[in-house]
Amino acid sequence: VKIGIVGGTGDIGEGMALRLSLFHTVLIGSREEEKAYASSEECIGILTERGVECALQGVDNQEAVDASEIVILAIPYKHLVGTLQSLSGFENKIVISPVNPIERSDHFYHAPPPEGSAALLIRKMLPESAKICAAFNNIAANRWRALDDPLNYSVAVCGDDTAAKRTVMDLASEVINLKPFDAGPLAAASMVEGITPVLLNVAKFNKMRDVGIQFI
Amino acid sequence: VKIGIVGGTGDIGEGMALRLSLFHTVLIGSREEEKAYASSEECIGILTERGVECALQGVDNQEAVDASEIVILAIPYKHLVGTLQSLSGFENKIVISPVNPIERSDHFYHAPPPEGSAALLIRKMLPESAKICAAFNNIAANRWRALDDPLNYSVAVCGDDTAAKRTVMDLASEVINLKPFDAGPLAAASMVEGITPVLLNVAKFNKMRDVGIQFI
Repeated sequence: VKIGIVGGTGDIGEGMALRLSLFHTVLIGSREEEKAYASSEECIGILTERGVECALQGVDNQEAVDASEIVILAIPYKHLVGTLQSLSGFENKIVISPVNPIERSDHFYHAPPPEGSAALLIRKMLPESAKICAAFNNIAANRWRALDDPLNYSVAVCGDDTAAKRTVMDLASEVINLKPFDAGPLAAASMVEGITPVLLNVAKFNKMRDVGIQFI
Repeated sequence: VKIGIVGGTGDIGEGMALRLSLFHTVLIGSREEEKAYASSEECIGILTERGVECALQGVDNQEAVDASEIVILAIPYKHLVGTLQSLSGFENKIVISPVNPIERSDHFYHAPPPEGSAALLIRKMLPESAKICAAFNNIAANRWRALDDPLNYSVAVCGDDTAAKRTVMDLASEVINLKPFDAGPLAAASMVEGITPVLLNVAKFNKMRDVGIQFI
């Protein structure tokens, strides 16, 4: 399938592009097409150097949506509303949200919008026919990029469309060692988003880096 | 140290008593002293049969508080306020909350009180000098009781008193294979409580049992 990554030039987006382009055609999207192009060239360079074949292309965010069956919203929460307002064409697409609304005081905390979660805010903003799944919320950007290391994590996937959720879980299990779990309807995504600040706090208060989770 | 378990005859309380009495003197508390006595006799029976020495005693909840340096509130969220209103003497004690405010619709979800978490509600109800830590929130009752299996989990510990938090973390690391992590101040406990409904959802939607977590 074709996977479009809106915000694909950010840390998480680029890391996901590197991993996913080994299995699928990935369109790295950006507000500025030249940035997307530069980013895709860099990714292709990294992967070619390893002798790996990949299918990657830099496009603007709108084309990343238009040309793909699966769209990943790899954007920081603070840019979520503005980015979605600037885009259209999400009808019938599978839309993956790894977005976490997080703020920071002396610790990290979950600061969801009135809808209850970034996932439900996206649900409200996109057309009914878009199949929204929350997934990959709890994986640090650096881990995506560390291609020599397996992503030895569990992935909680929430969504209301069973077939779309299955597709996203299959996508996750393709990525080396990621173990997907159905974590319920989209309404349950709030608590999955809330795991990320716990991981950030565990990292901060125990002098660790890029902490992830496994369900066991 | 002496550890009092308020609600020690419940599933989680009894399981914790079994594990902790191998290392410490444990007072199993209950509203009815006879129930606590019966429960402690059962625990002593289980442990003696294994040839393990243990220090266990059944008392009423108030004595479990009065006679202990560390008090574990092993009570269901719905009984939390009533139980705390019926007890006193928490001054200067370390108080551990494994309590999770959870409700259920077609999925499990975090339903915290206006204070933000069970931990912060306890903070409000108990005297200033009580040192409250959230811990053991994400471990299923059945796992505590399965004495043949190591508790191969991570434990997020939140609290505002550094020394008390250290004591609770040491208590956790004594219990075979539990790995404690400082997860920040008590204000961060909300998100740790919120992990439990994710684990319940993962169990429910993937036909699993007693799911726990590891931070890796």
